[in-house]
Amino acid sequence: MKQIDLNCDMGESFGAYTIGMDPEVMAHITSANIACGFHAGDPLVMDKTVKLAKEKGVGIGAHPGYPDLLGFGRRPLTCSEAEITRYVIYQVGALQGFCRAHGAEMQHVKPHGALYLDAVENKTVARGVAKGILALNPDLLYVALAGKKGETMRQVGAELGLKVVYESFPDRAYTPEGTLVSRKLPGAVISDPNEVAQRAMAMAEGYVVAMDGTRIELEAHSLCVHGDNPAAVALVKTIRHHLEAGGIQVMPMGRT
Amino acid sequence: MKQIDLNCDMGESFGAYTIGMDPEVMAHITSANIACGFHAGDPLVMDKTVKLAKEKGVGIGAHPGYPDLLGFGRRPLTCSEAEITRYVIYQVGALQGFCRAHGAEMQHVKPHGALYLDAVENKTVARGVAKGILALNPDLLYVALAGKKGETMRQVGAELGLKVVYESFPDRAYTPEGTLVSRKLPGAVISDPNEVAQRAMAMAEGYVVAMDGTRIELEAHSLCVHGDNPAAVALVKTIRHHLEAGGIQVMPMGRT
Amino acid sequence: MKQIDLNCDMGESFGAYTIGMDPEVMAHITSANIACGFHAGDPLVMDKTVKLAKEKGVGIGAHPGYPDLLGFGRRPLTCSEAEITRYVIYQVGALQGFCRAHGAEMQHVKPHGALYLDAVENKTVARGVAKGILALNPDLLYVALAGKKGETMRQVGAELGLKVVYESFPDRAYTPEGTLVSRKLPGAVISDPNEVAQRAMAMAEGYVVAMDGTRIELEAHSLCVHGDNPAAVALVKTIRHHLEAGGIQVMPMGRT
Amino acid sequence: MKQIDLNCDMGESFGAYTIGMDPEVMAHITSANIACGFHAGDPLVMDKTVKLAKEKGVGIGAHPGYPDLLGFGRRPLTCSEAEITRYVIYQVGALQGFCRAHGAEMQHVKPHGALYLDAVENKTVARGVAKGILALNPDLLYVALAGKKGETMRQVGAELGLKVVYESFPDRAYTPEGTLVSRKLPGAVISDPNEVAQRAMAMAEGYVVAMDGTRIELEAHSLCVHGDNPAAVALVKTIRHHLEAGGIQVMPMGRT
Repeated sequence: MKQIDLNCDMGESFGAYTIGMDPEVMAHITSANIACGFHAGDPLVMDKTVKLAKEKGVGIGAHPGYPDLLGFGRRPLTCSEAEITRYVIYQVGALQGFCRAHGAEMQHVKPHGALYLDAVENKTVARGVAKGILALNPDLLYVALAGKKGETMRQVGAELGLKVVYESFPDRAYTPEGTLVSRKLPGAVISDPNEVAQRAMAMAEGYVVAMDGTRIELEAHSLCVHGDNPAAVALVKTIRHHLEAGGIQVMPMGRT
Repeated sequence: MKQIDLNCDMGESFGAYTIGMDPEVMAHITSANIACGFHAGDPLVMDKTVKLAKEKGVGIGAHPGYPDLLGFGRRPLTCSEAEITRYVIYQVGALQGFCRAHGAEMQHVKPHGALYLDAVENKTVARGVAKGILALNPDLLYVALAGKKGETMRQVGAELGLKVVYESFPDRAYTPEGTLVSRKLPGAVISDPNEVAQRAMAMAEGYVVAMDGTRIELEAHSLCVHGDNPAAVALVKTIRHHLEAGGIQVMPMGRT
Repeated sequence: MKQIDLNCDMGESFGAYTIGMDPEVMAHITSANIACGFHAGDPLVMDKTVKLAKEKGVGIGAHPGYPDLLGFGRRPLTCSEAEITRYVIYQVGALQGFCRAHGAEMQHVKPHGALYLDAVENKTVARGVAKGILALNPDLLYVALAGKKGETMRQVGAELGLKVVYESFPDRAYTPEGTLVSRKLPGAVISDPNEVAQRAMAMAEGYVVAMDGTRIELEAHSLCVHGDNPAAVALVKTIRHHLEAGGIQVMPMGRT
Repeated sequence: MKQIDLNCDMGESFGAYTIGMDPEVMAHITSANIACGFHAGDPLVMDKTVKLAKEKGVGIGAHPGYPDLLGFGRRPLTCSEAEITRYVIYQVGALQGFCRAHGAEMQHVKPHGALYLDAVENKTVARGVAKGILALNPDLLYVALAGKKGETMRQVGAELGLKVVYESFPDRAYTPEGTLVSRKLPGAVISDPNEVAQRAMAMAEGYVVAMDGTRIELEAHSLCVHGDNPAAVALVKTIRHHLEAGGIQVMPMGRT
């Protein structure tokens, strides 16, 4: 029986500010990427989110980002490899504290926003992130981009001895070369729920239909979904139902 | 043979800013209270400080503070017990990450600045701190104020099941009631190195001479020393030599 | 013809985080208290909010707070008078920059959250705020609490030569002594829109009916309203219509 | 009589952290670039630094940077033009508040660290900074890099109608093309005080001797000096004495 994980960014609220519909989404996903206070999240939010994930049997992951709350971690910040490694240790360590407080195991680490994109593009950044994970706990899964473009990022993780989880995006168009179509181009983001659900199904089965209609292979262990608004939450439900109806086991990446 | 620990705040630099003469001081103390990024310290500084402490055989402790870098954690900030607990988990968890990265054990937690003083005065704060430590690791030593004034803070820790370490201040004058003389009063801080060293010796032997000349009992397991400037570093050396010459074993609080 | 101002906190969003329904509310109020980046707000939000206020003919005010984004400025932070004065100068100066960029005049300053409440309780804080305003521009109106409890805060402002605007809260219950009923007590916040609107009308006419039914005098030049959710926005509209239907001129505090 | 300005970064301390020997340096320079709280500086430091500059007759300038205290504003952060403009308005506006509080005029704006370097390399950044200055006060002088490499940055400022001040670096080697030799190359920074003073003199006279011995023209209105340590302070004194002995008038850029 085929298996797939559904991962979603969680715990992005901060102080009086709320982002995301965490309680609603947590019921449908299998892995949570929890912000660690640098680009989003705070100690109270982290505590609550770890607790909620544990209650729902959702795999707990750290979602470290650049130290840029003002930019929500979406802006590239030039950092050395050593800086990135230490930023990752700090953030993942902090989240690890809340896991221990709730008797929960941490499952994975997925870099956030610009840190993720920079890790895809830049070996130094990818190595910085991977070394941070390694220093903390080599058993933590390292979530990296599936497809051709993610090769470097995944290779860096694998060479350092990390278990790498490939993630793909059911709501994003792919080129025939197996890379994400830039968000700046029309059709890059797919909004029809049924189409997204079908693409999720295809990804669970190991392929994706590229923008030009070509069917290309794409190895993916986890699908990235979103939970910022009611439509997004509904979409997550649709994806999950579609996958399960199609005979796919939806489960945390750490159990597949 | 009598034993005492010398603890000192370390790792208080931040980014381009330096506070403290950490490498010089680390050679003479036995326990380091390492800032965790809220009131001072940053991931690079924490990493370097944990590494240095481990190399020198110095006991590693977390030094969590209020989230107030601008005020260096010296200003009271009204927080709920739950907020304090989570701030402690976050900060100690982050430092724990660097301990794991360096294969080091964490030994203790000592709250910083206003968080410490508020814990002395206010049961809610004391409980907030203690619960954070407990949630993370009940084996971590909890450093609290020796003498009458520290009773509440110590009791809260003990009731929750924490091992409490009593600390006193050889460079501070005490009232006949066994509490610190306010810094606002003349004579509150003792600057003569020999006098401070003699007081350290007395404290290691279980007493202190109060401001009015009375000799009062004072149970202390650790002496707080400073390392901000060359004179302070020299004072630490003097204290340590004096203690060792007097037959006191100077060693990390976790080994006594 | 009687006149009254309706003031509301605005510009409290930060980076990717949104608080408040600013465009909806701005159409109905006459003065905006704009956050300045310490407890809420950021340069982009400030720019947008000043522009919007100017377009709608709404009086522009600075809303300085404690440097505590994590606590949204709602937690008391012990600061010296000098610190508060400089925090006010910094924040009001920054907002003044956006006023100049949009060719707008700044009308008033109203401290936010815990800074406001501390100014009510504590002369040092009140003086710190007032001196900051004075140093920047003695023509800026200083918004302070109406009623008995606000006397100290208002007096400090007046003694320093500031023009003080008295503000009251139509959705809050008052004691027979003319002070706000604590939020912790039942009935402290009034939720019925018609009742709030009637109280606003009474306040515009110089009195309020206290919790025990006593009618007491209450001098108020501005009424504080809220804009965080659709119900709050509807309430602002109701209040304004009620006031205007009752023959009250609703206009910016600076023009009354 | 030839004239030149000596500008230096000032007010870079933050909270309990000190950087720079401001009182010592302020006696010898003619223009101060004062940090505004994003990469360094805080309201108390800004207040003190403006006061000190005014007392010494030193021209007051704002030194806005990226919002990156942890990186001291030395790390490129990808921002849009609109973000940069608003960051500049915020920071310069805040410093303007302290100028008003001390009855002082602001003279100039010089971007700090990575914001400066990015403005040199990238038209969008240069325009973002220039538009911020323009929006606040078109009479503020805009300090930009002298020599070939600074052309774009200066042109952007001039096209928008700003008065541009050319600055050069007496302690830095220049290529025969009139650009700074990269700090990564040997000989990029000149440490001999007499040599630096002679180069300052040459720059005041309109030329510089490049690394290969070529004498090239270099128009400069201001020389950038440093004040972080006793040697740097001594160097500033040496430069100033050398210039004055050579018949150059050393005065604020705004008066030349």
